[in-house]
Amino acid sequence: MLPFTNEEYQERLKKVKAAMSDKGIDVLLITDPCNMYYLTGYNLKSYYVNQTVLVALDDEMPRFIGRYMDATVGVLITTWLSKDHVHGYSDDYVDNTTKHAADYISGLIKEFGYGKKTIGIEMEHDFITPMAYERYKMGLPEAKIVNGSKIVNWVRLIKSDNEIEMMRRAGKITRKIWEACVQAFEPGARQCDVAAAVLEAATRGTEEYGGDYQSGPPLFPGGEHAGACHLTWDDSRYPDRYDMYMETGGAYKRYHCPVTRTMCLGQPSEKFVYTANAAIEGLQEALAVVKEGVTCEEVEAAWRKTVAKYGIEKESRIGYSVGIAYPPTWGEKTVSLRPGDKTVLKQNMTLHCIPGLYYEDFGITISETFRVTKTGHEKFYDIPFDLLIKK
Amino acid sequence: MLPFTNEEYQERLKKVKAAMSDKGIDVLLITDPCNMYYLTGYNLKSYYVNQTVLVALDDEMPRFIGRYMDATVGVLITTWLSKDHVHGYSDDYVDNTTKHAADYISGLIKEFGYGKKTIGIEMEHDFITPMAYERYKMGLPEAKIVNGSKIVNWVRLIKSDNEIEMMRRAGKITRKIWEACVQAFEPGARQCDVAAAVLEAATRGTEEYGGDYQSGPPLFPGGEHAGACHLTWDDSRYPDRYDMYMETGGAYKRYHCPVTRTMCLGQPSEKFVYTANAAIEGLQEALAVVKEGVTCEEVEAAWRKTVAKYGIEKESRIGYSVGIAYPPTWGEKTVSLRPGDKTVLKQNMTLHCIPGLYYEDFGITISETFRVTKTGHEKFYDIPFDLLIKK
Repeated sequence: MLPFTNEEYQERLKKVKAAMSDKGIDVLLITDPCNMYYLTGYNLKSYYVNQTVLVALDDEMPRFIGRYMDATVGVLITTWLSKDHVHGYSDDYVDNTTKHAADYISGLIKEFGYGKKTIGIEMEHDFITPMAYERYKMGLPEAKIVNGSKIVNWVRLIKSDNEIEMMRRAGKITRKIWEACVQAFEPGARQCDVAAAVLEAATRGTEEYGGDYQSGPPLFPGGEHAGACHLTWDDSRYPDRYDMYMETGGAYKRYHCPVTRTMCLGQPSEKFVYTANAAIEGLQEALAVVKEGVTCEEVEAAWRKTVAKYGIEKESRIGYSVGIAYPPTWGEKTVSLRPGDKTVLKQNMTLHCIPGLYYEDFGITISETFRVTKTGHEKFYDIPFDLLIKK
Repeated sequence: MLPFTNEEYQERLKKVKAAMSDKGIDVLLITDPCNMYYLTGYNLKSYYVNQTVLVALDDEMPRFIGRYMDATVGVLITTWLSKDHVHGYSDDYVDNTTKHAADYISGLIKEFGYGKKTIGIEMEHDFITPMAYERYKMGLPEAKIVNGSKIVNWVRLIKSDNEIEMMRRAGKITRKIWEACVQAFEPGARQCDVAAAVLEAATRGTEEYGGDYQSGPPLFPGGEHAGACHLTWDDSRYPDRYDMYMETGGAYKRYHCPVTRTMCLGQPSEKFVYTANAAIEGLQEALAVVKEGVTCEEVEAAWRKTVAKYGIEKESRIGYSVGIAYPPTWGEKTVSLRPGDKTVLKQNMTLHCIPGLYYEDFGITISETFRVTKTGHEKFYDIPFDLLIKK
């Protein structure tokens, strides 16, 4: 079931080990499902229980430690790990207030001979709780426990050509989603009906490439709620006159290709069109400066300068890197397109540039996911920036 | 947009404060999106950033502290909180390695006069990272920081009549999902096509009640991968002869009503049918003992005794409480139907009884979500337990 070659996984592991070594980390406990998937292929919907992929500098193969129910079959069929590197804890560790899976895992870590090592923990990630962290500290009193956050994320930042191909396939699905959304969005349709069309299209994918599940629900802020940029949907019906934007994205083999577009039922106000024009020109100018060697903040600056001509300012970042995603977000949590981020763009970074303009009474967002190239950027889908106005 | 009356939110808050008081907690920092929603109505897809609902014994209204982008509009339209109890931090706290939102939140906590209080943290929940926890400890050196896990979850365990009505509506959607799944599951269909039908039905809901987004993707383990109970899907085509089970559930206003059923293309083996019969009789016997006053472990014992007659044993729990859910799970993380759980069932607890039988080469699961009543149980959907065999 592995989407990549063994060689590619070895290459990834090598890079992660080099980064660990640089930081003086002997053993890294990976709990972020994106990072687990990146290194091993592990792909079960089990990140609500304690589980970890353990990478040790002195071992050629990572280990999986998690719930017995997953370790017996699911890990073996979704990863390249062999049975002697897969370890399960009994089911009564789940939702148990007196015994904790981190105790079990700590015991194994000592058995493996890592009890006195420097152990990195993904302290700035979801799916490792403060309690698990405390139990690791208690269970490994002779280890040096350090912050190992985002080590794998930074390795993920630059994609291989095979990963770029996954992004392209996800982009084809994104285009399908957009078509379904445009078709469903009509006066009298319920918000949930449009969401249903989007989820159906996202999951069906193309004839060639079936869709994977998305890392989050599509967002449909609109009307008087348009300023709530992380709103999902309800079952109210769209009126004849309505402005909204949708945020969603195709997913293929966990790679995500997000998009936002703004859509209107009937003719929007002049102010709305004016702001949309600013948003589009800003995005175009930002994309125009993208290429290897440019910094993240330079991309943002091009956007900022452009929208300033329209009298528009915005406090929040206008983009972030994307790739593998699991709930709750498709952000890779590394680089941001914003002032102060001096990360230099390199070929095969993939970013979602989303300069959303959210106000109290309306909102406009038009975005693009792209790959950085030596000379510019490659888009993953072809969806016009223009306001989609249904009359 | 609030799905419940103000009185109901006040009642919930009262119960949570009583539980805090019992544990000597002055201030509870709630980071679990289910608990935030339960107490305030807060319902944005923003749980990937640092945010908290702060409940203080000395304040009649909880406070929201989160990202400025959400605080300005989204919080105000989805909750009953007034503007003076809603606080936003600037966007550069997001994915920033040098400044942390927990520092900002700690500063506010001191401003509110809680810097020397006993502060509970949801240490056993997702969406508060170990780093945030460490920063709270650093930022609040004079506070007594204690584990405030699951205080709200235990209050959520017994549903109000209004919540039960939400569960009933979710159950109607579950039935719709099942119908769509049965229709789509055919030789030659791709796994992703069946998943698409399920997600479409889940989101569309019924004519009366639109579906909400589910807390996780539907699961479709089958064929040679049937033992991997938390597997999602791919884009391979179903052969003429295939056994699988699906796990999914309708969602309405965040209330979830999960189900699993087992489905076959063509006639399954005798062993498969035998095991399915055991699963069905086991579930029936477990449900037969459910009523107020019975313990969780007694329900499990009835199941265990029944399947033992078939020579079947199973290590894992056979159920858990459900209700409000956000990714990554619909489990409420309180009671489990398993040996040792002596929690006494009370009217209006809602549980998902899922005695899945997972083997290396096949799996069968048939489940039910129900409400505990004084004399028995109420089902939320009417879906036959039998194997669905398409010939």
